[in-house]
Amino acid sequence: MLNPQLNENGELIHLLSTEGLPRSILTHILDTAATFVGITDREVKKVPLLRGKSVFNLFFENSTRTRTTFEIAAKRLSADVLNLDITRSSTAKGETLLDTIDNLCAMHADMFVVRHASSGAPYLIAEHLKKRGRKDIHVVNAGDGRHAHPTQGLLDMYTIRHFKQNFENLTVAIVGDILHSRVARSDIHALTTLGVPEVRAIGPQTLLPADLARMGVQVYHDMNDGLKGCDVVIMLRLQNERMNGALLPSAGEYFKHYGLTPEKLALAKPDAIVMHPGPMNRGVEIDSDVADGPQAVILNQVTFGIAVRMAVMSILAGNSQ
Amino acid sequence: MLNPQLNENGELIHLLSTEGLPRSILTHILDTAATFVGITDREVKKVPLLRGKSVFNLFFENSTRTRTTFEIAAKRLSADVLNLDITRSSTAKGETLLDTIDNLCAMHADMFVVRHASSGAPYLIAEHLKKRGRKDIHVVNAGDGRHAHPTQGLLDMYTIRHFKQNFENLTVAIVGDILHSRVARSDIHALTTLGVPEVRAIGPQTLLPADLARMGVQVYHDMNDGLKGCDVVIMLRLQNERMNGALLPSAGEYFKHYGLTPEKLALAKPDAIVMHPGPMNRGVEIDSDVADGPQAVILNQVTFGIAVRMAVMSILAGNSQ
Amino acid sequence: MLNPQLNENGELIHLLSTEGLPRSILTHILDTAATFVGITDREVKKVPLLRGKSVFNLFFENSTRTRTTFEIAAKRLSADVLNLDITRSSTAKGETLLDTIDNLCAMHADMFVVRHASSGAPYLIAEHLKKRGRKDIHVVNAGDGRHAHPTQGLLDMYTIRHFKQNFENLTVAIVGDILHSRVARSDIHALTTLGVPEVRAIGPQTLLPADLARMGVQVYHDMNDGLKGCDVVIMLRLQNERMNGALLPSAGEYFKHYGLTPEKLALAKPDAIVMHPGPMNRGVEIDSDVADGPQAVILNQVTFGIAVRMAVMSILAGNSQ
Repeated sequence: MLNPQLNENGELIHLLSTEGLPRSILTHILDTAATFVGITDREVKKVPLLRGKSVFNLFFENSTRTRTTFEIAAKRLSADVLNLDITRSSTAKGETLLDTIDNLCAMHADMFVVRHASSGAPYLIAEHLKKRGRKDIHVVNAGDGRHAHPTQGLLDMYTIRHFKQNFENLTVAIVGDILHSRVARSDIHALTTLGVPEVRAIGPQTLLPADLARMGVQVYHDMNDGLKGCDVVIMLRLQNERMNGALLPSAGEYFKHYGLTPEKLALAKPDAIVMHPGPMNRGVEIDSDVADGPQAVILNQVTFGIAVRMAVMSILAGNSQ
Repeated sequence: MLNPQLNENGELIHLLSTEGLPRSILTHILDTAATFVGITDREVKKVPLLRGKSVFNLFFENSTRTRTTFEIAAKRLSADVLNLDITRSSTAKGETLLDTIDNLCAMHADMFVVRHASSGAPYLIAEHLKKRGRKDIHVVNAGDGRHAHPTQGLLDMYTIRHFKQNFENLTVAIVGDILHSRVARSDIHALTTLGVPEVRAIGPQTLLPADLARMGVQVYHDMNDGLKGCDVVIMLRLQNERMNGALLPSAGEYFKHYGLTPEKLALAKPDAIVMHPGPMNRGVEIDSDVADGPQAVILNQVTFGIAVRMAVMSILAGNSQ
Repeated sequence: MLNPQLNENGELIHLLSTEGLPRSILTHILDTAATFVGITDREVKKVPLLRGKSVFNLFFENSTRTRTTFEIAAKRLSADVLNLDITRSSTAKGETLLDTIDNLCAMHADMFVVRHASSGAPYLIAEHLKKRGRKDIHVVNAGDGRHAHPTQGLLDMYTIRHFKQNFENLTVAIVGDILHSRVARSDIHALTTLGVPEVRAIGPQTLLPADLARMGVQVYHDMNDGLKGCDVVIMLRLQNERMNGALLPSAGEYFKHYGLTPEKLALAKPDAIVMHPGPMNRGVEIDSDVADGPQAVILNQVTFGIAVRMAVMSILAGNSQ
């Protein structure tokens, strides 16, 4: 089966996952993003690359922050942005997802930014567009269930490359609830493709998926072992709902074992960077002294995230199926 | 009484209903829309006709889809669009509708797109603007109660003219819950004015209004009779709330009698087109084989709807009271 | 302590309160607003002063009308406007206010328009920006708790100057629930600074703050005394929640004593103007005959409010810390 993200020339037409994307495409996105990082410092932050294009934010699951970053990115590319509050729309009136998509296509949408609680929803939409012969409409996955969050994965890669120059000699640890994290999955695929030799997953047994070894990831249950010699530490958000469940004893217990404190961070390399996709639970997965400390690059991630999303949108807009 | 939709020169200043509009104005809107259909296929989909104008979407009743089509149309005309979530605004704090309108006028609005659950609300607003001497502010009815949905009526006319070239020899059937349908009323008035010789209403007694005959419409209770020889079949959405009420036995029973299947459609002319204002209830008023079949022009309606709304807005913006 | 609203050159970098602003800055804002009043009458209402800038509307407390006026003002300055529905965002997921602000800063925001139920929240944000060394980001207080609503205060001053030419010989009465009114506090500070010789507060003991005399305000409990000889009467909205509480007997009783009727207004000067920040409770604090009468300038306030907000935003954008 052809990769649904690429056209016959191997160009990116949808961004659904970092999985299955060749290193050349990942690198092309990062290089393009680098050209946009400068733009946001200029007096006028806009470029006309998507002028007259209509970008639809289809958030079936609410996420003000992620929607905002896509809206900013699209507006800085001069696109028209339409925010659809899908939970209040026709889908709620019993219309099928694909009928909704057909309708939006008929309004001459150019791009769908899709957030959905169900894994695979953006794929379903991309497939449907192909079936309909709509080669001119692009899909960006803004997070689907536990599956993928590729722009977050890419902005993490941008951040790592920015601070560490290249990927070839790095040890990267991802810490926390990897089982439920689409960010972790997108990071792991991107890190592997970009040539990071050692990717580690650190967390309690109950929060780690079974297929990590197959993905080339080394598993640690003890942070003191896992952090040793790391160049990059990616902390994951602990969803509140996990803490009340059977998977974890308590937030305090979690922090004791897997919260990143200055003491634990000292086990990593002295110049290790600390990342977090946000929003942070201070005192749960990360100590404020680390979050606000000199090794944290968490706000840089946010800044680079705008540039990466501008890069993805402008690359997609230039390609057709 | 003067028609509140027209100024003294007979030019359109508000679009409140298709009722009472002369054929020349309906045709002018359709002709103008035709010039916009091409624009949405261009690389840059914008024209500067409403640049610097402020269009206020006043949706007292929630409708994400209709609001979105107006927002797209206004943005493609380069207007600034303000979406007011009226249900959360000052009106909710006890302010009267007309005080709200006065306030928005004072903000130098240029156009109000009004959706309201009460029939006549857009008329009330237009009258109030006249009383205030605000000749520069235009009202577009985006659906009021059971009364009218004129832009839907006009896009239906555009679609019919697109596929059938003219209105003079057509037989058009409207099927379903005509009693509660503002779309049906707007269609009937437009079809009659544009010279369609035979307009039919098909539905159960309980869902047909009493004044159809006076409007020049022929009434059918049996679809097999009503569809015979039709050029155009307009299916209406069956509101879910009707199905639980006293008016209808069940959704299954309704589909059996009034759902459009390929077999029933075969009774119409072989080149008959099938329309639906959306969102569709597949398996209730329309069979998927028809909805996705070669005679359905339902998605064309959506596309033409953007052009028609651009036409209405640009014509209104050019006229004053 | 340095005034957090001014930089070392005494230029405005945040608008947090009318308190503590020198007369020269208030006058500069009003003069700048005067240049924008004309713009809203032009065919194209936009100026490119904030082109490429990102204005974030951070409404922690819902206010459709105030948000709309800022959105219009920003769009007429050609800014990109991002509306954040904070009640549904990460703050609701347990993130701290300052982490949210840091994130938005990292997205290269240029301006925060902040509405918050807690007095002082905009100050907290401005202080945090200073600590972070973000000299390029400006805060506009769009209403914080009972504390301040400076753009409302400034538009009131603009309205008074428009109708009365100068402030030097005026008697201004503020009537109603001054205790809970951020508008009243902002008005009092601005009136005093601009040289109004006599400011009066009229209301029942339970709705007047204790520090009025210290602010140079004369206190009246009887409207018949307080309105005598006034040039300007500012009526305040009576919040519905007050009427059910222990502070007031009933809405009818309130209207009898403090509602502005034509009879009571006749006690003021014949050319006195009547103002109200909206939304009005007709029949509670103001009689319809007054609200719609020739002395009311309530809708002028709204119009001037857009120009004043454009002035504030454009002045802030031109200054840095």
